[in-house]
Amino acid sequence: MSERRAVRIDFETQAVGKMRNEVSMTAPWGSGWEMATDEGGFHGGDDTAPPPLAYFATGFAGCFLTQVRAFAKRMDIQFSALSTSGYVEWWIETDGRKPYTTGPQQFAIDLNCETTASTDRLIELVEAAKRGCFVEQSLVSVPIKHRINQNGQLTEVD
Amino acid sequence: MSERRAVRIDFETQAVGKMRNEVSMTAPWGSGWEMATDEGGFHGGDDTAPPPLAYFATGFAGCFLTQVRAFAKRMDIQFSALSTSGYVEWWIETDGRKPYTTGPQQFAIDLNCETTASTDRLIELVEAAKRGCFVEQSLVSVPIKHRINQNGQLTEVD
Repeated sequence: MSERRAVRIDFETQAVGKMRNEVSMTAPWGSGWEMATDEGGFHGGDDTAPPPLAYFATGFAGCFLTQVRAFAKRMDIQFSALSTSGYVEWWIETDGRKPYTTGPQQFAIDLNCETTASTDRLIELVEAAKRGCFVEQSLVSVPIKHRINQNGQLTEVD
Repeated sequence: MSERRAVRIDFETQAVGKMRNEVSMTAPWGSGWEMATDEGGFHGGDDTAPPPLAYFATGFAGCFLTQVRAFAKRMDIQFSALSTSGYVEWWIETDGRKPYTTGPQQFAIDLNCETTASTDRLIELVEAAKRGCFVEQSLVSVPIKHRINQNGQLTEVD
């Protein structure tokens, strides 16, 4: 029988320095994780921490791979090696000093793996990971290309 | 005259340990930022690093606040205090040990500020930040609630 519940994360962000933001997760992890973002000198920052987009890309890649690992166990698929590579790409339109505008162009993620599982099973796993990935499901308006690189052989999933 | 270009970030993610993923940004920052995600024991991890969703929430909150700060300069708005608070919330549907499914429910971000700027100017700033925020523009299918908390007074933006 299926069951539905909510997963909610509360955060707080403090602007400090030139462009540094100190971010903390206030619930459900309490004061556990404190993170900071900054920008390089080119964008008026002091380069004291990774930029926000590095956190975003880490959330995207990390969430997808975590889903793959969690569901591989449930689907009884074993890997002797497992990694991903990919990119996130946006367009940006600038007009002098006016606030610029932006939008997503293409995201991509390759699942690089060594396994004896069949390609069909791996495609099933990637499709399940897409449906179970909180980040991907928040990005349904973005074209995201998934490929499986199994023992060096590429298969397009979408 | 307006100009359009691409902003692309390349990443690599290595699965290690039980649920730890080591993420590095390979371009354009080179080997500069190395980040890791993990899960707590409840989700089969070793709790060695923040979970992917903490990175995602940091990317979301950090990108929005960075945009606000960058555009406030361009729009000549000064703050004596600036922070955000908010949350990201999803539904999750589980069915025994089957791979679960998920989707975004509601995201929210309050801009807490002390400033002598008018509320209209602040609304203009938040709208510009939304259009310029790489993360928000990737989340257009998600309901995101923005409010301004100016010197203790709440204004809904959307």
